[in-house]
Amino acid sequence: MKILLLATGGTIASRETEHGLRPALTAEDMGAAIGAEDGSLEVVDLLALDSTNIAPCHWQIIARRIAECRTTYDGFIVTHGTDTMAYTAAALYYMLEGIDRPVMLTGSQRPLGLAGSDAESNLRLAYEAACSGFAGVAVAFGGRLIHGNAAKKMYSLADDAFRSIGRPEIDLAAPSAPTALFHLRDALDERVAVIRLYPGMKPVTIDAHIASGYRGIILEGYGLGSVPGDDAEESFLPSLDRAKTRACTIALTTQCIYDGADITHYEVGVRAAELGALSGGTLPIEALYARLMILLAETPEGETVKALC
Amino acid sequence: MKILLLATGGTIASRETEHGLRPALTAEDMGAAIGAEDGSLEVVDLLALDSTNIAPCHWQIIARRIAECRTTYDGFIVTHGTDTMAYTAAALYYMLEGIDRPVMLTGSQRPLGLAGSDAESNLRLAYEAACSGFAGVAVAFGGRLIHGNAAKKMYSLADDAFRSIGRPEIDLAAPSAPTALFHLRDALDERVAVIRLYPGMKPVTIDAHIASGYRGIILEGYGLGSVPGDDAEESFLPSLDRAKTRACTIALTTQCIYDGADITHYEVGVRAAELGALSGGTLPIEALYARLMILLAETPEGETVKALC
Repeated sequence: MKILLLATGGTIASRETEHGLRPALTAEDMGAAIGAEDGSLEVVDLLALDSTNIAPCHWQIIARRIAECRTTYDGFIVTHGTDTMAYTAAALYYMLEGIDRPVMLTGSQRPLGLAGSDAESNLRLAYEAACSGFAGVAVAFGGRLIHGNAAKKMYSLADDAFRSIGRPEIDLAAPSAPTALFHLRDALDERVAVIRLYPGMKPVTIDAHIASGYRGIILEGYGLGSVPGDDAEESFLPSLDRAKTRACTIALTTQCIYDGADITHYEVGVRAAELGALSGGTLPIEALYARLMILLAETPEGETVKALC
Repeated sequence: MKILLLATGGTIASRETEHGLRPALTAEDMGAAIGAEDGSLEVVDLLALDSTNIAPCHWQIIARRIAECRTTYDGFIVTHGTDTMAYTAAALYYMLEGIDRPVMLTGSQRPLGLAGSDAESNLRLAYEAACSGFAGVAVAFGGRLIHGNAAKKMYSLADDAFRSIGRPEIDLAAPSAPTALFHLRDALDERVAVIRLYPGMKPVTIDAHIASGYRGIILEGYGLGSVPGDDAEESFLPSLDRAKTRACTIALTTQCIYDGADITHYEVGVRAAELGALSGGTLPIEALYARLMILLAETPEGETVKALC
């Protein structure tokens, strides 16, 4: 059994300084905390970032590194800050399509080595899952194993910080196999925005993004994904129409955490769909965002994405 | 005991049509479903809106109506669509400061009268709470009573759709009294935006809002409320500095649902606070939004809000 641990920074690799937490520990420190049998664990310091500063270019660095040495190792652990771990997990989930072994993201709410830290138990959980027969990208955190496109950080302080949205947690005892051949999908179109709806919000915000050259907008509506229609003081439908004309893909999703969006159920949703808007379904926003960036990168300029799945 | 029910529309007052759900039922229908003793319940059709289309001007209509007849009734029920109920509840919570009797918002996920609808049980829960000695604005839904500034719609389909964020649910058996004299705070400054952060987001989005004349921005950061700092490819701190110069109040909050924001714990948060950014604490975004609109309306033009509490 050979496992590769890639360290990227985060609280787990930090020390308290007079300027707050700062990345200070190395991949070797993470590896030592796992206490694996001799030779089964290799470690690499890939990045040393507070995950607030992790951007799509870093998703590419991680995905490409794993793709390069995919067949050399039986499993992978990526240590990462918790703040954007769900975004990175979703990106790797879609970028490493069809990966046939485990890629486990983990981290901690408190630094490794601090009394009572959750780092050690999370590292051990990730290592155990990385040694399993699971195939795919997942978050290993707080005793839970969550598919990479379903994770959401729900608690800013509690150790058990992540929840699985829209699909069950992973059962390592269940059989797991990739549903596609391995395919590194590492092109990302960064011209995607996430916009939250709120009462009184003006649809001109949508138009401003279209005018700025965004090719995709994830619109975080209410309930099943609704936005103000023609009965409202200011309808969003004309802006969605302009998005279509300007080849900007709109994905409608919801501010609700659970049960997802379904735009077939109400009039303005049906009309939005007629204007080409896609339904985010039960995917959390973190997953929708990474998904749309990949799909747009694979869609010719001037065309919209036709389906999110 | 005299209770006033104000109907504003929503799914609870809707019927299925060929164009989807449409407001169709009246306040009288709501009242009949409660089945109160003769004379104890009066009803008014105040609005007939899908709550997706409820805007701050409608919060004012509801708040002013309740303030006008506050002493005539022992309690109030506001029927409302679920999609923006949490926003309206938060707005009424702050607008009806110090109200000394119950104001209960309720609604349903499925129309009143439909087989298996949650409307009847929610109306009865709201009526029971409106007849209690509770003082304040709350959401009565799915068997739960939630303070108006703590409600969040978490499920887009399930009957038990709302959760209390940052404070316990209401126990009607516990004593309840207003902490201030009644004061209608019905001025709202609508120049407030809610902006969600995502990896790769450009801080120019903040600048564009400042340039458009927004006086307040609620920035939905990561974890405890963090935003990219000077270690990031593009720091948000210069934009927060420009916000300060242009007298735009920034409230930093979190995409996490539970545990809230605390910007005293990390370097970029401390620096943001030095630039005048306020911490959203454990208030849900729905409450922060209404709160900041009221505070800005009471703050002279060209000045920023100094505290959210």
